[in-house]
Parts: sequence; C-alpha cells; structure tokens
Amino acid sequence: MDQNSQQNDLLVATILKLQETQSQLVATVEALSNRVNVAFPDTASPPFPATLVARSVKSEDGDAQGVIPTSSIESVSRDVEDDGGKIQRSSEAASPAQKSAFTSRIVLTTYPKQIGINPLPMDWGNPDPLKRGPVVVSRLANTIRKRNAIGAHGGSYSTYYALAVASKELNIDHRPDFTNTEPAVNVGPFPQWGDRDKIVAMDPYGHLAPWLFKDIIGKDDVDIRPTIAITKAHMKLPELEESVRKGRLVPDGKICLNDLGELAVTKFAVEPVWYLPGVAERFGIDEGTLRRSLFEHTGGSYPELITRGDLKLFLPPIGGLTVYCFGDPAKMSDPNVRLSLRVHDECNGSDVFGSDICTCRPYLIFGIEEAVKEAQNGGSGVVIYFRKEGRALGEVTKIGIVYNARKRGADRASDYFKRTENIAGVKDMRFQALMPDILHWLGISKIDRMLSMSNMKHDAIVGQGIPIHERVELPDELIPADSRVEIDAKITAGKMVPWSSAAMLSDQKEAYDAKVISPPENASRQTSWRQSKAGFGKTLITEQGAANLSFGMRSGKETKSQIMINTSWTFQGL
Amino acid sequence: MDQNSQQNDLLVATILKLQETQSQLVATVEALSNRVNVAFPDTASPPFPATLVARSVKSEDGDAQGVIPTSSIESVSRDVEDDGGKIQRSSEAASPAQKSAFTSRIVLTTYPKQIGINPLPMDWGNPDPLKRGPVVVSRLANTIRKRNAIGAHGGSYSTYYALAVASKELNIDHRPDFTNTEPAVNVGPFPQWGDRDKIVAMDPYGHLAPWLFKDIIGKDDVDIRPTIAITKAHMKLPELEESVRKGRLVPDGKICLNDLGELAVTKFAVEPVWYLPGVAERFGIDEGTLRRSLFEHTGGSYPELITRGDLKLFLPPIGGLTVYCFGDPAKMSDPNVRLSLRVHDECNGSDVFGSDICTCRPYLIFGIEEAVKEAQNGGSGVVIYFRKEGRALGEVTKIGIVYNARKRGADRASDYFKRTENIAGVKDMRFQALMPDILHWLGISKIDRMLSMSNMKHDAIVGQGIPIHERVELPDELIPADSRVEIDAKITAGKMVPWSSAAMLSDQKEAYDAKVISPPENASRQTSWRQSKAGFGKTLITEQGAANLSFGMRSGKETKSQIMINTSWTFQGL
Repeated sequence: MDQNSQQNDLLVATILKLQETQSQLVATVEALSNRVNVAFPDTASPPFPATLVARSVKSEDGDAQGVIPTSSIESVSRDVEDDGGKIQRSSEAASPAQKSAFTSRIVLTTYPKQIGINPLPMDWGNPDPLKRGPVVVSRLANTIRKRNAIGAHGGSYSTYYALAVASKELNIDHRPDFTNTEPAVNVGPFPQWGDRDKIVAMDPYGHLAPWLFKDIIGKDDVDIRPTIAITKAHMKLPELEESVRKGRLVPDGKICLNDLGELAVTKFAVEPVWYLPGVAERFGIDEGTLRRSLFEHTGGSYPELITRGDLKLFLPPIGGLTVYCFGDPAKMSDPNVRLSLRVHDECNGSDVFGSDICTCRPYLIFGIEEAVKEAQNGGSGVVIYFRKEGRALGEVTKIGIVYNARKRGADRASDYFKRTENIAGVKDMRFQALMPDILHWLGISKIDRMLSMSNMKHDAIVGQGIPIHERVELPDELIPADSRVEIDAKITAGKMVPWSSAAMLSDQKEAYDAKVISPPENASRQTSWRQSKAGFGKTLITEQGAANLSFGMRSGKETKSQIMINTSWTFQGL
Repeated sequence: MDQNSQQNDLLVATILKLQETQSQLVATVEALSNRVNVAFPDTASPPFPATLVARSVKSEDGDAQGVIPTSSIESVSRDVEDDGGKIQRSSEAASPAQKSAFTSRIVLTTYPKQIGINPLPMDWGNPDPLKRGPVVVSRLANTIRKRNAIGAHGGSYSTYYALAVASKELNIDHRPDFTNTEPAVNVGPFPQWGDRDKIVAMDPYGHLAPWLFKDIIGKDDVDIRPTIAITKAHMKLPELEESVRKGRLVPDGKICLNDLGELAVTKFAVEPVWYLPGVAERFGIDEGTLRRSLFEHTGGSYPELITRGDLKLFLPPIGGLTVYCFGDPAKMSDPNVRLSLRVHDECNGSDVFGSDICTCRPYLIFGIEEAVKEAQNGGSGVVIYFRKEGRALGEVTKIGIVYNARKRGADRASDYFKRTENIAGVKDMRFQALMPDILHWLGISKIDRMLSMSNMKHDAIVGQGIPIHERVELPDELIPADSRVEIDAKITAGKMVPWSSAAMLSDQKEAYDAKVISPPENASRQTSWRQSKAGFGKTLITEQGAANLSFGMRSGKETKSQIMINTSWTFQGL
C-alpha cells in the first residue's frame, strides 16, 4: 500500500505533467491551426479550436476525461493535408489524396515530395528537347501537379488573365488551338541551345513547344504554351521615309520595299524563362540568395521560390524582348556574312513620344537604318528591343522623379548618377548579364558592327564569347541637345568609353558599367558647342582631369534644339 | 486496495488515452512542422520530430517518464512564432517578439492580428489625406509590420529591384532622397479624390506621398514612396514636323514650339494602386473571387491576397499609365473650356516600330495632333497611354501567334475574333473598367472630343458619369491597308459603332465591347477601295445584312500601302 500509494502519487504526478504538456501542445497546434483556418475561410471542417480546445483533461465532458476524440485530430490532419495541397500525411492517415488542389482548397504554396506533386522532368541544357522536357507552369487542374516551373505565362499580363477569369470573360478550361501558329521562319537548332551556360533566361524550344510536346499535351492534358513567337511583318517609320528622301537609304524592293521607306522584317517575340541556377551564376551569386531576393523584394510573391528548391525554372512577371531581323534570318548565324546589331532598352518617353531629354529613339532609328543597310549589302541586320523601361526603374521613378530633380538642381553631368542613386538607390537596374542569351539563341557568333557604345552591353556580350569587331556611335546630328547632360554624366563617371569623338556620346540609356571606371588621369578633353543652323562658331574648353569635369549646359528653349556639341578626348599616353 | 486498484485502473486508462492523444497531436504537429522545416532549410533549430517524437511515455529516458520537456515545446513555439513572422504566441509563451521578420527567417505569408503585424490605418476614399493614411507596401525591416498594402512599388520592375539587391548593387537600407522631386505642376485636389466609387485603381495622393506623410517617414522610419510623378517635357515627333510642313499644325511658340513640330507637354506617370473592394465592384464580382483569381492565375503569387483580408490595397506587377497634357494643365478640369482626349493602349509593334498591320501609331499621332490643336484654341488636349500591350495578351500571344494564324488562314474579318479567342481564350483582356479613374483624378468632368471609336472605352467613361459629346474617327488616309481586316472584324462583330463613314474603321485595338452587339438589321454597308496615288478608281460593294459580311482583302505587297478603303453605313430606319 505504501508502495501502491507511492506508485499512485507517481502516476498522478505524471498524469498532471502529461496533461500540462498536452495543453501546451494543444495551444501550439491551435496557433498553427488558426493560420490554416484563416487561409481557408471556405473550409468545410469545423474550426479546429472549437473541437480540440474544448476537450482538455479538465473538460467538463465526463465520459472520457482527458481524451481528445480521434475524429477531431483526424479533421486536423485533413486540414493540414489540404492546406499544403498534398502535404505528406502523418503516418496515422497515409492514404494518398488525389483530388485536384486547384478547384478545392487554396494551395498557398507547395513543397517538394508532397503527395500528388510530380513535376515533369526538366533537364535544362540537354540538347535533345524531348529529353530536356517541356516547360510547364500552368496551375490548371490537370497540370498543377506536373508543373516544373514557378511563375506564369505572359509575364505581367498574367494579372489581366486573372481579371479575365475573375470576371468570367475567360473559361479556365480553355485550351489554345495552335493551328496555323507555327513559326513563320525556321531558326536553328544551334549547339548553343543545348548549352546550359549559354542560355539561362529563355526557353530555346519556346517557339516549338506545342508541337514538340504534342504527345504530352494530348495524352496527359497538360497545358504547354509557346514562349517564343515568330512572324513576318512590314513596318513603316516616318524617319525612314525621310532617309529615302534624302538618299541615305535606297529602296531595293525586298528589305526596304519602296520610297515610303517601308521595311520587311522578321519578328521574334520572346518571354523570359529563367533557369535559376544559371541566372544566379551570371550574377555571381548563389541560387538561394537569388531566390530569397526575388521573393522578398517583389513584395513576397511566389513563395515557391523558397519552398520548391526542386523547381529550377521561373517565368518572372516582367516584359520580354522582340527581335527585328532585316534580310534573310538564316544569315544571322552565318559567320561568312557581316552582322550589324542594335540592342535597345525600352524608353517609352523617347521611343514613342520623342522626348528630347534623351537619344533613345534617335539611336533606335539609327540602329534600324544601319541594320537595313547591312542586310541590303548581303549581310544581316538585327535590332533587339528589351522591355526594361527607364533603366528598369519604371517610369514613375525615371521620368517624374529623377528628371524633376535633374531639372531643378544644377543640371550638372557630375551629379546625374548621384541624383539617380539618391532617389532610386542604384544608378541603373537593367543589368545586361542575361541579354546575350538571345544572341546565342539566334546562332550569332560574332558582331561586325555593334550600334551602341555601352560598356555594359559590350562586356556582357564579349564575356559570353561573342566578339564585337566595331562599335558604332550615334552621329552628332541625331543627338538632342537636352540629352547632353546625361551623355556627359556617363563620360564624367567614366562609364562610357572615351573612344575618339563626340559620337560615343551616344545613346542615353547606354554605357553604364557595374563598376565605376575612373577616366585615365592622362586624358584631356575638348568640348565644343556649335549652333548648327546659325553657324554660331565654337566655344572650346580644354580640361585636365576629366573625372572632375562638371558643367551646366542650359540653353534657351528657342534655340536648344539647334545646338550641337562635340567632344573629343586626347590620351597623352597613347 | 480495491479502491486503489480501481484508481490504478482509471489512471492507467487515462494515461493510455493521454498517450494516444499525444501521439496524434505529435503527428499533427509533425505534419505542420515538416512544412516549416522545408520552408526554412537554413534553420538553426533542430528538426522538430527529433526532439519531440523521441520522448513519448515509452521513452527510455527514465528521469521523468512520460513528460515532454518544456524546453522542447518552447522551441516548437518559437518555430511557430518565427514561421509566420509574428504569429500569435500560445498563452504559455506570450511575450511579444519584436525582432525584424525581414532579416531573420523567411515569412512566406502573414496573417491578420499576428503579433507584430500592425498596419498603418488606411481609410480609402477619406477626403482628408492625413485621415486616409499613406499607402505602405515596403517589406523593409522597419516597415514590414506597418504595411497596409500587398504587392510592391514599381510594378513588374520590382523584379529588377530584386536582382539589384541580390547582386549587391543596391543597399536595402537605402532611403530615397526626394529633394527637388516635387510635382512640376499642381493638380487638384478634386472632390473625386475623396470618393471611393470614383478612384479605385490609383492613389490620388500618390504624387504627394513623401511630403504629406513626412512625419510618419521621419518619426517611424517607414518607407513611403510616390506612385505618381509629374514633370514638364519637350517632345519631337517626325509626323508632327510633317504636320507643320503641310500646314495642318501652326507653331505658336508655346504648345507647338517651332517649325520642327516640337511640343511642350506636362507628363503624369501613374503606378497602379488597387483598392480591391472597389476593383471587384467595377467588375461586378465579389472581392473574394477577385483575390482568389489574382492569386491563382498569376501562378500563385502574393499569398497575402488570400491570408490578409484586412489589407485592402494591392500594387499589382503590371504597367501603369502616362498622361500627356498639352496646354495649361489647370484647364483639364475647367468645365468652361473644351477638352479633347485620346485614351491609347500600348502597341509596341506599331507605336514604336510602325507595323502596318494596325492603326495604333497613326491613331496615337492623330490624337496628339488634335490634342495640340485643342490646346492652341484655348482648350485642353490630353493623351493617356496605358501599358496594356497587345490587348493585354502580351506580345508573344498577340504578335506571333494570333497574327501568324491570321496570315495563314483565310484572312477574313469574320474569323478574326474567333481566331484570337481560339488561341488566347478571350478576345481582349484589356478591360476598360478601371481606365476612367485617371479622368476623375485629373478633374475631368466632360469630354468634348473623344479621339476613339471604341465602344468599350466610351461605355466605361460614360458609365462613370463623364459625358462624351463627340467621338472622332481616324481619317481615311491614316489607315494602313493591312490593318483593314481587323477593322472589318470589329464591324462584322458589331463591336464598332457604325457611325457615319470609314473613319470608324478606326483604331485597331479599339472598339471592342464586352458584349457582342448585333448590327442593326436595317443597315446597309458601302465599301470602296481606291488606290490613292495611282487614281485606281473605285470598286463599290453594297451589301445588306452587314452582320454576315466577310471578305478577304489581300493586295500585292508593292501597292498595298497605297490602297485606301472607304466604308459607309446607311441606316434605312434613320
């Protein structure tokens, strides 16, 4: 009895401790479950706390003191399982649930090896497209479990797609009919398509996806869409009509069609498809850092960037690029003919509206004209348009904020990047690290004439093993006077190569480098203004130590469009 | 003893049930913990099951049989707490943790009423901006708990921001210096700014945010950024130089500055800020449906759309809009002067590259020219450019796929929308429901001349209580011949109002309606071709039952740019 009594005391003490622990556990599970319940307001199960918390050891429910009914726990298990879609069930409830996660409960994120999660194989860089596998990103009912990519088709237009579905304009069961949408010209395949070091930001088989993977689409009802489209088109730019009129461009009836300057062109539109390990490598960072930053700094979008380390592809919600090819597209990859290339980053204010604060449209038009001439001479001319508005800062930051600050402060070249950095925190966010992918995809192996003076673009291309034989400057007469400050800023900051003449005072959005390169100390600089129409003469300024050069260039509104600037550099050591 | 024995039996039974319950709880917590562990691969805590599961009643650890050490539970509690950032702690561990969620563990999503989650008040539609409160979306360390909006600044450019941070180009502690960035002109405030029915897709105080909420920024180190920027600029379009040359436009030195056709303009760049209940209402759907669709159909981005019903604002990763105002901006809201308006949806292929397949750039230029003339006549001229490329289908879908199908099939007007729908699942995803917000924000109360024949735009504007007095068509000579099929498609589908003449053959991306309106049965249609330069004469076609009209219009490449089409409608009943 003494022993019994002692045993009893031990038992009671143990039970009390068990009970205490149990209520702590219940509270913990309750906290977790609250979140699950908030996430699933439409859940059919009763809220977890109501059933579980009411039944502790101290429950007034006398029939089975201290026992949580098994049914409640199971409902918790079900909740948990449905929460993550097909989360691994606990051992007590291991039968796989196969119902669609899309149409029932909301899947906030998914995890590798969840039951029902079974991505189609993706061996990025495999030269055999069928072995590499299709890019699958759709979350439609039959596809969601087979996805091997994070993100959505259409970049930022997926938001409009969502609106279309929400407002019942679009039936989510719709499957595209790709009849007659095959690429208008053949391209490749090139060895680069099978090199995971060369292509990391687009799907080299994106134009062929619906046809290459027809069996998978048909057999498994998997939603596979093209990410590249190719078509032939005509275009007509008023500036080129003038080029013809002035005799700079001669219609040939095939590339430049007529005396209106109308052009025949082959267009390639490309949506971004990122192979995350390769993208990280281009930026010299690890994949985890890239994923975390993409998640955090987009406002916490795409939690699968964090939870699905097994998915290596990401279709980000950004704009893509469009290639405009003049002449026979097959010549782009022919090393025996010359190639002219303009890589242009979007600038809506100039490209569409002709803002005189920069040289974007002038340089674009110049690039097109030079590309056409190269094609007419038997070579190939290519212009690639990247959707990276305002140095990828976005238009509110660029146009309104940076430009306003520029116009109000002393508009000095030396301050330009500082002002941009003060406001945006960074001089330029375009990055060119991923840009050369499209060149590899097109089979381009060398560039004879690069219509850009940007060091950043140059270095990215050359760094990818594609030599550039000549860099061509924007002619003086195409530089709007008001864009002068930005060009000088680039030279002042040493971001533009001080080549030989004014011309490399070129493209406004060009010529940035990741690192600031100081101009050589032994360089001297000559700057001259001339007023083109009035024959104003010259004002000559010579300075040593160009790195410290700063000057204001504000001219009267009436005359400024006629002012031309010429700058040359002299290297004493050369 | 019998009593003791009975007590023992009860104790044993209770312990067994406690044990059973405990193992069920353990399994439940394990399942939840698995998700936490997968989400935090870099976690410092030992995996939960290893510490907890090993200690059951049957544990070999003898010193306190059947007792789970409190320390293990606490580590679970910490896990839980850190998981959701500042999740409600269980009552056993209620002290609030205030450390930054941003720099420590990853917050996959947040929940309302989590400890540490304390959004700044947001009373959308309150006419007093200080009572309404600032839009706060940043996830920086000092701001994340105070966020009252989902998403990120800069729309899709947040992805580039993320790259800048990842590659250490950008210091995340950077705070913008807004010196000299104040709006270049004053606008409003208007009563519309305080009406939550009128403005749901932009922040009416977005241009003033850094100054209105200076105290909050300074005192609490909250990151508040402008979402609207206003600047003055000059622009030069080659088409307008021609307008001056041909005498259509006369330089006045103030709006049209000179004989180069250079224009003075005030620009307003606006980033989207959606008030979700208001956006849902515009689409006639409930907020939950909108949130769910936005989450699902963007590939599962922004789980807070689901979990944070308390956050009513969303900054979506899409492009915004830019207003180009000619003349005195104050006149836009003056009901006593005339207003001309062009609402233009982006079309890169035409707006920048002059594709002849559509009338986008011609209509844009026409809109600008008419706006300038209105301003020169003492009124106000406004052009608003929306970033909704390719009917918001994106360029890959529009240019490559739809156009290819169009060119290969019989290029018939009656099939155009069907083809688009076959491929994209929807005819058009631009939606105009949110478009009128900017008109309200500018204080526009009526439109004298609407430079668009789109029913969709018309109805959205009029539906918002802004009357349109006249709709102006694109003149014949500005219609590229190859765009003919799309225009006819609109008329065939009854989506374009059969106004009076060819002109309503207008803008290529215009004139869609959510509902297909059948053309009046008593309408007859006259279509004539003429070859403008060669004086080709006329081919007259008259048809009854225009709804069934379909014809191919393929002309030789050499001459097609000179072919003009004229169509007129006759209403027998009128």
